[in-house]
Amino acid sequence: MLCRPKYPVITLTTDFGLQDHYVASMKGVILSVNPAMPVVDITHEIPPFSILSGAYAISQAAPCFPPNTVHIVVVDPGVGTARRPVLMQAGGQIFIGPDNGVFTLVAGADENSKCFEITRADLMRPEVSATFHGRDIFAPVGAAVACGKVLPAEVGPEIVDWIKLDGLAFEQSDHTSWNGSVLSIDRFGNVITNFRSSAFPFLRSEEFEIALAGQRVTRYGDTFGEIAPGEIFAYPGSSGYIEIGINQGSAALRLRSASGQSVRLRRSPGRQRQTEKA
Amino acid sequence: MLCRPKYPVITLTTDFGLQDHYVASMKGVILSVNPAMPVVDITHEIPPFSILSGAYAISQAAPCFPPNTVHIVVVDPGVGTARRPVLMQAGGQIFIGPDNGVFTLVAGADENSKCFEITRADLMRPEVSATFHGRDIFAPVGAAVACGKVLPAEVGPEIVDWIKLDGLAFEQSDHTSWNGSVLSIDRFGNVITNFRSSAFPFLRSEEFEIALAGQRVTRYGDTFGEIAPGEIFAYPGSSGYIEIGINQGSAALRLRSASGQSVRLRRSPGRQRQTEKA
Amino acid sequence: MLCRPKYPVITLTTDFGLQDHYVASMKGVILSVNPAMPVVDITHEIPPFSILSGAYAISQAAPCFPPNTVHIVVVDPGVGTARRPVLMQAGGQIFIGPDNGVFTLVAGADENSKCFEITRADLMRPEVSATFHGRDIFAPVGAAVACGKVLPAEVGPEIVDWIKLDGLAFEQSDHTSWNGSVLSIDRFGNVITNFRSSAFPFLRSEEFEIALAGQRVTRYGDTFGEIAPGEIFAYPGSSGYIEIGINQGSAALRLRSASGQSVRLRRSPGRQRQTEKA
Repeated sequence: MLCRPKYPVITLTTDFGLQDHYVASMKGVILSVNPAMPVVDITHEIPPFSILSGAYAISQAAPCFPPNTVHIVVVDPGVGTARRPVLMQAGGQIFIGPDNGVFTLVAGADENSKCFEITRADLMRPEVSATFHGRDIFAPVGAAVACGKVLPAEVGPEIVDWIKLDGLAFEQSDHTSWNGSVLSIDRFGNVITNFRSSAFPFLRSEEFEIALAGQRVTRYGDTFGEIAPGEIFAYPGSSGYIEIGINQGSAALRLRSASGQSVRLRRSPGRQRQTEKA
Repeated sequence: MLCRPKYPVITLTTDFGLQDHYVASMKGVILSVNPAMPVVDITHEIPPFSILSGAYAISQAAPCFPPNTVHIVVVDPGVGTARRPVLMQAGGQIFIGPDNGVFTLVAGADENSKCFEITRADLMRPEVSATFHGRDIFAPVGAAVACGKVLPAEVGPEIVDWIKLDGLAFEQSDHTSWNGSVLSIDRFGNVITNFRSSAFPFLRSEEFEIALAGQRVTRYGDTFGEIAPGEIFAYPGSSGYIEIGINQGSAALRLRSASGQSVRLRRSPGRQRQTEKA
Repeated sequence: MLCRPKYPVITLTTDFGLQDHYVASMKGVILSVNPAMPVVDITHEIPPFSILSGAYAISQAAPCFPPNTVHIVVVDPGVGTARRPVLMQAGGQIFIGPDNGVFTLVAGADENSKCFEITRADLMRPEVSATFHGRDIFAPVGAAVACGKVLPAEVGPEIVDWIKLDGLAFEQSDHTSWNGSVLSIDRFGNVITNFRSSAFPFLRSEEFEIALAGQRVTRYGDTFGEIAPGEIFAYPGSSGYIEIGINQGSAALRLRSASGQSVRLRRSPGRQRQTEKA
């Protein structure tokens, strides 16, 4: 490690799946610029066209990566229309993809974020198809930035009206209730809400109720190991959000939960929870 | 990037799936030769034993990769039988795998392609199993070629009778009709035909009918964005072929389409299509 | 290749799946230590919480990798409980993960294996979550070892009471019978038993019966190619174990077989099998 290039890693997040050659085509374009560039998959199993799921995945993974990582995110139902390709600077990293809200969470975490519309055709593939901007625009622009051929601010004009997704933050409805929503379901069937754990420290010590899909969760745990198999409970997830899980089971199946679903959290102020563990 | 090795990247395309250790075993063999060799997955979700799908995937991905990339392709229903292991030079790249037709498309695109039977046992693993030539033959030979230990032409004798898949090209049946087939279905349910877009420029401006599975497609679009959700249409795909899609839906499900299915394209010569967009 | 670092490669084996950001978060942590470190996926499709499947996958893949490879394995139903994080030295390689038996097979293959409990908090992420030790403990410790920041024996005290899975070895029940079990089912539906091929050389030449799930397998083949499509047979797998397969079919579906299932092998001593092939 004598040399650490300024942009050391490129990541890819898409809804392309892994059965087709689409992701590999993007990697080939990047490696044609620099065959030694590390290219890391975040996930390619974003549900097709789910901008919310893409926004959540990249916001969770990006902070684990080195400064100046270039993240290419392609969840792009509007490909081929007038929607703009953009480059977002946020949190000391670079994000490249369509301007459709997929960068709402990463940009929202940095009040100094900057967004540029990608307009320079000389950075793209000579022929840009109408349906595969991942290969023809985002991969070559990402590789050009990562290799230092162009500065982030040089891909096109800065813009301020980039698109933000609505409804990603929870809201307080009265002094003991909050309305939120489900951000994501993970492979284990854990339900990730948009309630930031740090905003609800009382869950650990007081009675509460989390209601979603007509069902209620009132049990709290810090770990799966302290909960009996089959019991549903709330816990502070590795995501930084309150999650709902079942030890060795799927909370999402039990609750018939899905991304975007409403969740209501109600506090029973002053009531200490009965300690259920030793 | 002071040094660019002549063979900078190895790719892998298989029907092994990702649940087992098989793909990783191949990567371990390659990295045992050179731990710094970039190894890129094209896809491992080729339907088991589908040589046609493998031929299509590698033909789509390869042109995006740098010159001299070594592509290892293992879709190999005949493993352990007398079918030959081969190395194909085509399009400035190297292809290594079983001689069963999986290189028909990449070799067909280069009239100067050359094929060599891999016969040198010293390039293989000391014990070659009867069922896993990906690990025991193709990976070590690919790594030896990529590392410059052996020249492509030195793996064994040149052969001319390597196996070609039939029926991959469309055929004109009369002066306004062509018979073709479905090459692939992608994750989004788009149906990729074998009609080269460049051979049918009239689709954009004239009336036509594409018939498959007893149904007809008569609508044309350049992008998904210009088509109403739910409507079925033909478009020039990023694959270079005419594809059938539904904006935010699955054409393959609607048409009950599958790889290999017959498709008929009929032109209505001289009839200008009504312009359906502004 | 002027320089070969002592620990050239890190691999990852988990039950996290590929739809979430979890695997990528681990990779980001590793690349934050060394952006040029090769990180290879063994598989992330271990059935959730299946320690046996994880133990089998890593034992199969590891021998293909270079000496001193660092293998991180996270199949961890006990995350957040008192189960210990460990580093195992075995077979000239390093294994890092939870102490739950997942290293039984790799350690069992090396009588000089050594195990260390990982106790040094300075090697972990500053805040260790209760549910994601892959990101917070195993990835940073693996990266620190691979980069030479710490020696394997320095991660914590050596321990000898690390957990071993029971029942992984077959047993002889009488002089012509052995009891074993199913180690794994692969993507093709092949059933991998725990009968080491090298222990049963008579299968090739004598009559035998393998019984599982109330059905019997009496046919033997060295390769799939020599067996008629649809016929069930036993063969010496690339795994080193006797496997049950069907040429172009799924033995696991036909036998309703699953990981952990009992298998009985019975020899008909002295009886030469009729040669069924030329």
